[in-house]
Amino acid sequence: MEENIPLKPGERIDDLQRNGRRIIQDPARFCFGMDAVLLSDFAEIKKKETVVDLGTGNGILPILLEAKTAGSKFIGLEIQPDSADLARRSVTMNGTEDKISIITGDMKEAADLLGKNCYNVVVSNPPYMVEDHGIKNPEDAKAIARHELKMSLKDLLHQTRLLLKPNGRCYFVHRPFRLAEILTGMVREGLEPKRMQLVYPYVDAQPNMVLIEGRKGGNSRMIVEKPMIIYEKKDVYTEEVKQIYGF
Amino acid sequence: MEENIPLKPGERIDDLQRNGRRIIQDPARFCFGMDAVLLSDFAEIKKKETVVDLGTGNGILPILLEAKTAGSKFIGLEIQPDSADLARRSVTMNGTEDKISIITGDMKEAADLLGKNCYNVVVSNPPYMVEDHGIKNPEDAKAIARHELKMSLKDLLHQTRLLLKPNGRCYFVHRPFRLAEILTGMVREGLEPKRMQLVYPYVDAQPNMVLIEGRKGGNSRMIVEKPMIIYEKKDVYTEEVKQIYGF
Repeated sequence: MEENIPLKPGERIDDLQRNGRRIIQDPARFCFGMDAVLLSDFAEIKKKETVVDLGTGNGILPILLEAKTAGSKFIGLEIQPDSADLARRSVTMNGTEDKISIITGDMKEAADLLGKNCYNVVVSNPPYMVEDHGIKNPEDAKAIARHELKMSLKDLLHQTRLLLKPNGRCYFVHRPFRLAEILTGMVREGLEPKRMQLVYPYVDAQPNMVLIEGRKGGNSRMIVEKPMIIYEKKDVYTEEVKQIYGF
Repeated sequence: MEENIPLKPGERIDDLQRNGRRIIQDPARFCFGMDAVLLSDFAEIKKKETVVDLGTGNGILPILLEAKTAGSKFIGLEIQPDSADLARRSVTMNGTEDKISIITGDMKEAADLLGKNCYNVVVSNPPYMVEDHGIKNPEDAKAIARHELKMSLKDLLHQTRLLLKPNGRCYFVHRPFRLAEILTGMVREGLEPKRMQLVYPYVDAQPNMVLIEGRKGGNSRMIVEKPMIIYEKKDVYTEEVKQIYGF
């Protein structure tokens, strides 16, 4: 089968260990990390729900969510045409074109492109870094994925609010150092934070990721989940992480 | 020495295992909990700093902070005259009247009573519960300590802002379910959240406390500390907690 897949130079195919799903990646651009895997597990997508992923990159979130959940439609919006093309080829390779659509477009116009008040869920693994200092080439795919060059937190939350139905949910993964900004921004947009989990690399280390669920029009009361610990000891994942990865 | 201490019916004296300090408590009113002990450890009070505790109750926070830090002046503000009297007797018993003052007064008027823009640090272990449902007697000391009857989160944050010098710090302990409200309220008052620690009873349980540090006029970037875990297993504290308690 692989001989029919149109790979470009430098690209490779990775097995996602989930319903036979695979993904095309280009290490020179960006490869998905644990953030996307944990977010796909944290997000609760119910039967027949519709999901938008803002800044989908190589499409990892819609591909994983389609494989893991009973959602009916997954739309990945991506501003970089080369990334969107790569994501589309993965969708074709998996034979999931009926459920996943990759749209090339600017996240800042997401609601104009995709429609207002009509989705059950928005997910995003956005760029974490505020600063653009030290970036040599602002058109570099890795810089765009990591820094808020094309996609600010403020824009992300505003477009999320516009896209979601009343009571719709959003799921984000981000860095803990921006937690106050994230929660404040969500409240400002009426996306009430309802659930949060901190991800600690080790039980005695500061967290390096935070997973957050919001609800459009929810009331002000949230659950903080038990800590997620990644490593039992050096190079050894905890049982919880092994299960999420499907090992 | 104990025969000279004026105890009222039902009161007892507890040893704080710290510099010989002791505290008078009345189980019918309110006894301090682990929250106060953890907050006194989380708060970083530097040499010669001045500290206000809003809603001091039996005075546990100023008593612990005077014993553990090099701060120069500790003021506990308490609206209930009986609690303030009890706190004052503990201060006298410990011979720390030169450093600790207990003021009877309403937290909502804290800055008018104590002065504006003139303290280095504000601490508080405020009532956690929003609702007053199910409270039979709103003048009951335990109800006042647990529910926002005399002291709302909004008032607490506003008075904290007024009391603090520029760059002054505040330290609070609260319940995680109100985290979004706390961080949003702090940002609104210009008390930027700078540091946070979640307290988990067990490594696989949801947290039941959150410790937060804010800075008046700080920038928007925070540190989330490693998880604090209370119990190694049932009835056995972790080493970290034993150290904080001075066992």
